[in-house]
Amino acid sequence: MGITGPSESGPSTTSGSHELDLEEAAGDGGVKEKTSTSSKLMFAPWQSAVDEGFWHQLASFKLETQRLAEHPVPVSGFFAPCSHPQVPSHLQLMEESLPTDPGGHSSESFAVQGNRNKCPVPGTLYNSNTLEGFTGLDTPSLLKITTQQIWEDIQSGRAEETSNLLNRFLLISFADLKKWSFYYWFAFPAVVITPPVTSSSCRPVSEAFDEKESTAIREACSEWRGTPATASSCFFLLHFTSGAVIARPIKDWKLAQEEGGKVIAAFYDPCNISTNPGWPLRNLLALAAARWEVKDLRVLCYREKRGFIDPQLSLIVDVQLPELPEWKAPGFLPKGVGWELNTRGKARPRSVHLAASMDPERMANEAADLNLKLMRWRLLPSLDLPTLSSTKCLLLGAGTLGCQVARGLLAWGIRHITFVDYGKVAMSNPCRQSLYNVEDCLNGGKLKVDAAADSLKRIIPGVKASGVYMSIPMPGHSVSPGEVDKVVADASRLKELVDEHDVVFLLTDTRESRWLPTLLCAEANKVAVNAALGFDTYLVMRHGAGPLSNQGEASGTTEAESSVQPGRSRLGCYFCNDVVAPLDSTANRTLDQQCTVTRPGLAPIAAALAVELAVNLLHHPLRINAPADSALSVTDNSTEPLGILPHQVRGFVAHFSQMVVVGSAFDKCTACSSIVVEEFRKRGMEFVLEVLNRPNYLEDLTGLTEMVAATQGMSLDWDDEGEFTDEES
Amino acid sequence: MGITGPSESGPSTTSGSHELDLEEAAGDGGVKEKTSTSSKLMFAPWQSAVDEGFWHQLASFKLETQRLAEHPVPVSGFFAPCSHPQVPSHLQLMEESLPTDPGGHSSESFAVQGNRNKCPVPGTLYNSNTLEGFTGLDTPSLLKITTQQIWEDIQSGRAEETSNLLNRFLLISFADLKKWSFYYWFAFPAVVITPPVTSSSCRPVSEAFDEKESTAIREACSEWRGTPATASSCFFLLHFTSGAVIARPIKDWKLAQEEGGKVIAAFYDPCNISTNPGWPLRNLLALAAARWEVKDLRVLCYREKRGFIDPQLSLIVDVQLPELPEWKAPGFLPKGVGWELNTRGKARPRSVHLAASMDPERMANEAADLNLKLMRWRLLPSLDLPTLSSTKCLLLGAGTLGCQVARGLLAWGIRHITFVDYGKVAMSNPCRQSLYNVEDCLNGGKLKVDAAADSLKRIIPGVKASGVYMSIPMPGHSVSPGEVDKVVADASRLKELVDEHDVVFLLTDTRESRWLPTLLCAEANKVAVNAALGFDTYLVMRHGAGPLSNQGEASGTTEAESSVQPGRSRLGCYFCNDVVAPLDSTANRTLDQQCTVTRPGLAPIAAALAVELAVNLLHHPLRINAPADSALSVTDNSTEPLGILPHQVRGFVAHFSQMVVVGSAFDKCTACSSIVVEEFRKRGMEFVLEVLNRPNYLEDLTGLTEMVAATQGMSLDWDDEGEFTDEES
Repeated sequence: MGITGPSESGPSTTSGSHELDLEEAAGDGGVKEKTSTSSKLMFAPWQSAVDEGFWHQLASFKLETQRLAEHPVPVSGFFAPCSHPQVPSHLQLMEESLPTDPGGHSSESFAVQGNRNKCPVPGTLYNSNTLEGFTGLDTPSLLKITTQQIWEDIQSGRAEETSNLLNRFLLISFADLKKWSFYYWFAFPAVVITPPVTSSSCRPVSEAFDEKESTAIREACSEWRGTPATASSCFFLLHFTSGAVIARPIKDWKLAQEEGGKVIAAFYDPCNISTNPGWPLRNLLALAAARWEVKDLRVLCYREKRGFIDPQLSLIVDVQLPELPEWKAPGFLPKGVGWELNTRGKARPRSVHLAASMDPERMANEAADLNLKLMRWRLLPSLDLPTLSSTKCLLLGAGTLGCQVARGLLAWGIRHITFVDYGKVAMSNPCRQSLYNVEDCLNGGKLKVDAAADSLKRIIPGVKASGVYMSIPMPGHSVSPGEVDKVVADASRLKELVDEHDVVFLLTDTRESRWLPTLLCAEANKVAVNAALGFDTYLVMRHGAGPLSNQGEASGTTEAESSVQPGRSRLGCYFCNDVVAPLDSTANRTLDQQCTVTRPGLAPIAAALAVELAVNLLHHPLRINAPADSALSVTDNSTEPLGILPHQVRGFVAHFSQMVVVGSAFDKCTACSSIVVEEFRKRGMEFVLEVLNRPNYLEDLTGLTEMVAATQGMSLDWDDEGEFTDEES
Repeated sequence: MGITGPSESGPSTTSGSHELDLEEAAGDGGVKEKTSTSSKLMFAPWQSAVDEGFWHQLASFKLETQRLAEHPVPVSGFFAPCSHPQVPSHLQLMEESLPTDPGGHSSESFAVQGNRNKCPVPGTLYNSNTLEGFTGLDTPSLLKITTQQIWEDIQSGRAEETSNLLNRFLLISFADLKKWSFYYWFAFPAVVITPPVTSSSCRPVSEAFDEKESTAIREACSEWRGTPATASSCFFLLHFTSGAVIARPIKDWKLAQEEGGKVIAAFYDPCNISTNPGWPLRNLLALAAARWEVKDLRVLCYREKRGFIDPQLSLIVDVQLPELPEWKAPGFLPKGVGWELNTRGKARPRSVHLAASMDPERMANEAADLNLKLMRWRLLPSLDLPTLSSTKCLLLGAGTLGCQVARGLLAWGIRHITFVDYGKVAMSNPCRQSLYNVEDCLNGGKLKVDAAADSLKRIIPGVKASGVYMSIPMPGHSVSPGEVDKVVADASRLKELVDEHDVVFLLTDTRESRWLPTLLCAEANKVAVNAALGFDTYLVMRHGAGPLSNQGEASGTTEAESSVQPGRSRLGCYFCNDVVAPLDSTANRTLDQQCTVTRPGLAPIAAALAVELAVNLLHHPLRINAPADSALSVTDNSTEPLGILPHQVRGFVAHFSQMVVVGSAFDKCTACSSIVVEEFRKRGMEFVLEVLNRPNYLEDLTGLTEMVAATQGMSLDWDDEGEFTDEES
């Protein structure tokens, strides 16, 4: 990545460190000069450390909360005093560093939390939307803004109340969530004191104090560190009074001076260097100069060993502050430094690429949702991903349509898919059935339901995909006495499956195999979405609500049915246009009728439309009861963000055209009329068996027989559904 | 498979054999009775053997030639005299058994071919379209018909002219080409002689004749078998005259009788049983009884050893024929027997399942074409599969659209696909890009072009799929001096690729990446099909012919261009609606603009339509010059079988609607106008580099700059192409 540093932020205005290379950066207010009594004081810069958890949290925060916004976000860093002579303490960013409130606007959620090893430090995150935005950020200005905040906190006394504000930091970033790469740059702004601060002495606590004083200091620090209210306040005072040493907040400086006795300033020092204090001292000295107006200050760089002060590692530094008359001028703003160097010691951003280290399964699952979450940023804020991901879809048929519908559902964030099919993957399948490969066809072919579920898991490992290998009982396919048990078991299993799922897709290869699922959906009032293919025409439709649902007719008024409510009648099902019951259509079919002889373009189109229709429906407050939108009802784009919710879509690929159709429920429908649903409720499997075995039973039951007899000779205007030869399973 | 035998063809009317179990079937005109001098003669039935090649040939004959027709088809079986004491000779069907003329109507293409080991036997194949049709065939009637043919051939003397007609056979079959399963049943009709023929003697040739006679017989047979004109005639006579033996055709029976001397009938006996003659003798005896009116006949069952008569294996049978007065009655038709028993000894069909034994690759390749070949049976006889399978498609972009277009092309029988892409498979790709799995994303991701080509080969092993990993030079993406060589190489490679392919699909993720391919297609007059996606809208279009092609304007008339020919102007390209040249649109794109943020349903629909459009175009006689059909021009279904051939299809998924649009070429188009194409021809890569580096160059060149300046303030009615954010690559 050819990221170049911000043009206005060259090394001359930055300060930082590369790993343990602690030499102070040049340009920090002067050059190192040795005088006889005191030398220029140099500070070991902060080192940042970002947990992987922070990046993951940033990813979801960006995707789900911040989206397109680029406003600064408050973050909390955490650190503790250095506790190991070889290793400095880092400023850490972790998962909890990011705000948890959905707005992301919580003003400085950071607070003294009483955890002595996780002292919170307030920071500000500028996360850019684009790499160009990131590299183009005005880093000098950002640093100036933060330095100003620190300066103002010093001036106002707020920094004395909440001393951790002196460690305030800045983080700029760009999260490339497609590649799981993060580009970032920390700044730890320090107020520059010019001419520089000098030090006349810098030695370990053990050398600076005698045994008694050391013990008193140890006890005072221990109490500060052990008291929840103060434990994570990283600046404090040690007040030496008549043999005792008390740790006090820095706001007590003037008070302690008045009370008399020696006062030294102390801070949790992340640095492990025996010759230099760490970076936090810089802003403490600025405070001392500006607020306390001292010339000389003794400072304890507090470092720990096993939970107590480490008298060898901790330093006592005697500091001489210069005259700073200009600081009194109204509106004066001191210069700030502090952009961190990268791991190569350059004043440049760092980057981290998590793709390689992430668990592929987790990454795949997160990546699969990426496009959808991005969709919510701008184009479709109302997209209801939680609903989609919890919706259970039952796909009846794992053929050309079934495979394509499953892919479409995955792409929309559906994560629970169950296939029902009774076939094996044949050699002629893969070139049209997009979940199968040639490998699935070998040795007689895998069960389609297994191959399809496995294939979905190779697309998104976290998908809950499964398959049920069973045939769907069909009217006209008569049942011999020996088969009754199996057919009843199949029908019962299908009923369970319909009950267990939220949306049922009818994608089977025959008309009659759609009958029982249609009835079961009508009975359970489940959403049914149907797709059927002709040679160059397709039909995609959703079935209306069940006849015994609230929106359907009340039980018992079967004669009147939907026709009594013109304008808001119950929507029809796949069988509502028919005056004949479904019969065995598989017998005597030639090869071209057995196989999918449709234009190859049809199935992807019909499957995509079936999925779009289902997703639209899931976003409609009335769900299955939603009325049918007609094409004409949408005159502008101001309606639902997902567009219209039609009843039926019919397409004609030979004309590259498509139309929206509405059809009401038919009171003599052989699948969804109340008389059929009631009979099924009453007689259960006995009813199903009678339908399967007696070709005319359904027509007699619904009154179709009579009706057809009565209309003999009339010219009926029924749609010719026979055009749709359906889909190969 | 629960195939049940034809109801009217029980064992009582059939005769046949299971492997080497040669006992004669019951009901064949009587029961075995032993008399003192002679016993009822029993015949060893024919055994059929079908080469795998025959089934493959039948598959393609059915798919490509016969299709829906069920007319009987002449086939040739082949056999030779038995030549091994343990193994009978089979009647074999091989690849060449089926007719080769496209009509499949060749009347008895069988002929004496002079191959002594491949004596042709005429047969008739009844191949049913459905399993139900097969099991429902009226097998008694079919047998009767064939028996009648044999009887008529005997009566007319035709069987004496062409003796192999006596072996005429019958084959019924059903080919389940989806599963590569074949159901079949042979019949070898034999005229039943009642009361039965008896035999007074049956012994080896070596016992029936002395040394000298044996030698003479050996020489006569050898000459018959060695003469091309007679070698494959399986019935003949041996005429014993004054010490010599001559082999003569059976039509010479009467003549030989008149000439005097002993005459014995001979036939190539497939049977290896030492006690019985083989099945062919039955119809020879019927001929002898009906035509020669003999009572006693000596017969040689000719069997071979190393190319000569085997005197131990060959039999001499002395036969007594009964009185058959009813045979003289006019219109008399003797009864026939001969349905072969299956391998379990039942009078039932046999089946063979080739799926397990077939080379999976071959089978996959054949299966992939199955649906298309079936389409030609009934729905789309004009489907030009040879053209499609030889069309070379170049897919620019292997993203959501590229994957789906490739699948669609495979399903239409396209077998040559080249991908161009410059990306790797990312974790967020598989759930929308249907050729990739999670595995393709690991370790940084495979190159998309490789993963896509590999994926196609897992769908159809025989596909010629390859990928070219390269970026497409784009206007506005300026080229630094160090990059010139690479960019020129890329542009040159792209030009080669366009030249090498027949159809170019533009499926890339930016507007500007379509510019150079559009120009190259316009220059080479190559078919370009373009698909672009908005959030819920799509555009699918074909570009018009190149401006310097015949249908375009003549070179030099750049000012006038298409507008001079209203009603038949050159069709526009993707850029013809624009008044600004394409520029770098990738800079500063936020994550939701970088990724495919479109409704998931769009890409499958747009890709399917792009493929349908391309396939339609390939079927149009004018190809790239085909005028644009409008939706209104099709008022009925009587036009082209594939439907209309529009210029552009625009779809609106939020409205579930789609419309057909026509746009003419624009004489100031920055991609396909003659001024641009001519400049490219003149200056080549220098021109391309100038376009890439100078944002306004194309607008200046084409006169767009002037035009826009002149129309400032006017309300222009250009389509807002900006709506289409294109496709992620």
